[in-house]
Amino acid sequence: MDLRVAVLPGDGIGPEIMSQGLAVMNAVADKYGHKVECREALCGSSAIEKTGNPFPDDTYNICKEADAVLFAAVGDPKFDNDPTAKVRPEQGLLAMRKKLGLFANIRPIQTFKCLLHKSPLRPELVDGADFVCIRELTGGMYFGEKYQDNDKAYDTNYYTRPEIERILKIGFEYARRRNRHLTVVDKANVLASSRLWRQIAKEMEPLYPDVTVDYMFVDNASMRMIAEPKFFDVMVTENTFGDILTDEGSCISGSMGLLPSASTGESTPVFEPVHGSWPQAKGQNIANPLAQILSVAMMFEYFGLKEEGTLIRKAVDASLDANVRTPEIQVENGMEYGTREVGEWIVDYIRK
Amino acid sequence: MDLRVAVLPGDGIGPEIMSQGLAVMNAVADKYGHKVECREALCGSSAIEKTGNPFPDDTYNICKEADAVLFAAVGDPKFDNDPTAKVRPEQGLLAMRKKLGLFANIRPIQTFKCLLHKSPLRPELVDGADFVCIRELTGGMYFGEKYQDNDKAYDTNYYTRPEIERILKIGFEYARRRNRHLTVVDKANVLASSRLWRQIAKEMEPLYPDVTVDYMFVDNASMRMIAEPKFFDVMVTENTFGDILTDEGSCISGSMGLLPSASTGESTPVFEPVHGSWPQAKGQNIANPLAQILSVAMMFEYFGLKEEGTLIRKAVDASLDANVRTPEIQVENGMEYGTREVGEWIVDYIRK
Ligand SMILES: CC(C)[C@H](C(=O)O)[C@@H](O)C(=O)O
Ligand SMILES: CC(C)[C@H](C(=O)O)[C@@H](O)C(=O)O
Repeated sequence: MDLRVAVLPGDGIGPEIMSQGLAVMNAVADKYGHKVECREALCGSSAIEKTGNPFPDDTYNICKEADAVLFAAVGDPKFDNDPTAKVRPEQGLLAMRKKLGLFANIRPIQTFKCLLHKSPLRPELVDGADFVCIRELTGGMYFGEKYQDNDKAYDTNYYTRPEIERILKIGFEYARRRNRHLTVVDKANVLASSRLWRQIAKEMEPLYPDVTVDYMFVDNASMRMIAEPKFFDVMVTENTFGDILTDEGSCISGSMGLLPSASTGESTPVFEPVHGSWPQAKGQNIANPLAQILSVAMMFEYFGLKEEGTLIRKAVDASLDANVRTPEIQVENGMEYGTREVGEWIVDYIRK
Repeated sequence: MDLRVAVLPGDGIGPEIMSQGLAVMNAVADKYGHKVECREALCGSSAIEKTGNPFPDDTYNICKEADAVLFAAVGDPKFDNDPTAKVRPEQGLLAMRKKLGLFANIRPIQTFKCLLHKSPLRPELVDGADFVCIRELTGGMYFGEKYQDNDKAYDTNYYTRPEIERILKIGFEYARRRNRHLTVVDKANVLASSRLWRQIAKEMEPLYPDVTVDYMFVDNASMRMIAEPKFFDVMVTENTFGDILTDEGSCISGSMGLLPSASTGESTPVFEPVHGSWPQAKGQNIANPLAQILSVAMMFEYFGLKEEGTLIRKAVDASLDANVRTPEIQVENGMEYGTREVGEWIVDYIRK
């Protein structure tokens, strides 16, 4: 297969983990005879510094023309506490989502046996948890009309029927390919937007008679996810709730640094780690590259290249079993590997 | 002291736990020579059935004239899945909050040693966690302009400076009375309303030089709360985020059924359990009355009656130690006590 991949390393540890993701991607492509052509592009605070724009047009065009985007992370604390900053790295992320029409953020939450002790939850609660969070990504308060002056401010949580239908459809279809259990999370006892979500979900239910649907208020979902994570199979929700719940879900797995995600929609899909840019660790060769590497696996799988994805997953499992791990997940007294060394070990494994 | 208390038992298990709360209140009042005058009023689905209004004017007047409101819980599942229902029990709660100007919801999250095994978190993470969540309760998307038709819907997350200032003030003051650490939770990297919150918090910081303030994005807070609950001392946030985070916080303690809360503001303060109306358990004498009883303790303490509050807390601890517990927290092979029996045991303890 020929694949054109747009590569967006972004900020902080982004470039370091991206190098390892690309090395793995190339090793797999070599092995299976795929031709992957990469074009790198700027985004986030690195793009602000060079162009004043966190998602420049050049970057957009490169993404647009590609078959897939590999993204690392953006964000820099120097922008966070400055309420007057007009341009923020995160706007690059939001612009990318909006411009590429990435309305569905898909996060498989899975646990790794050897990392269960990293979960804040009791092992018996989380062992075997395996669910998918689907977050609407281009609507709601993130993109609704906003206003701010010195005395008042608002954001608008706006959703239209087509926006809701297309994301619920993805939820129903994912559930169908898994254990046929869909949980629609909303706040229909308070929010008008949630009531429309719930109404539309109920209208769609008869189209998927094989899927069991339940409705859960977001406050309840945030509790259930820690009290009984194995309850969930596929969860679907709107943008802001999804922001909070997907992070909570990643955290309970104990494997935050290992979780990849996909964002799909109207144009080029994007594959990226769920973790952030960890600016404090930049340049130290200590960041875990596994989430980036598993994002590459998700990318291959998205294009139907199952074996390629499986090989990467096998290589990652093998590296964990061999204790070839970055500091934050290394076992006591185990030797600590750097970002690069973990990546190289996995590349070697794949080449074998 | 003379106290006029408005009593709102509400729906589901509300009336059962309220009976026990009142019995304890009266026992304490007798012991210390206080005169408590109670007036009961309708709210929630019980009020809808009798008057068509979940928070009738009569109820409002009774609350308004009282020194404190003791509230149990409202909510009935028959309204949840009916997107066309025009009147919902929860509207009673929202109307009460708005009409009494209850802008601050205060939830102390504490753990009980003997219930630590009920927490979904590893005991070492949660043992000793002790923080206060302060949620803004009368602004944001709950009360902003709403619209819904068949094709679109919106809610408005609107905040004004005075609304933000008064709740942050409560946060700073609470922090001052505790360990001087305030965490302001927002989504200032995306929301205009959050940027105003952050701006105002930064303006207020110099007024409380003894308080250490940090700012945390809500997605991060939802993770930190389970990854490191002991990080928090006082957390303050807006209405919707607070809805999600306060429930998450209650859940991690393992003592959800035991946690009381206070809502305070411009008029009569309200004291209520954090748990809901548990309609499935209605009339079965199995609901845990401790959160309601501890709400009575919070009420006495609010009026400066420290000893009275302490006695109730001591009685509750003693009942737990004596394994006089409702089914959901009873130890293995322990005798299960009913709502009533737990309440009576505590009343006896207080009378002694
Ligand atoms: C950086 C921020 C804008 C972003 C979001 O809130 O969507 C991030 O938290 C995420 O979840 O991808
Ligand atoms: C019942 C509902 C309207 C309410 C809320 O969301 O405020 C409840 O969840 C709460 O937290 O008190």
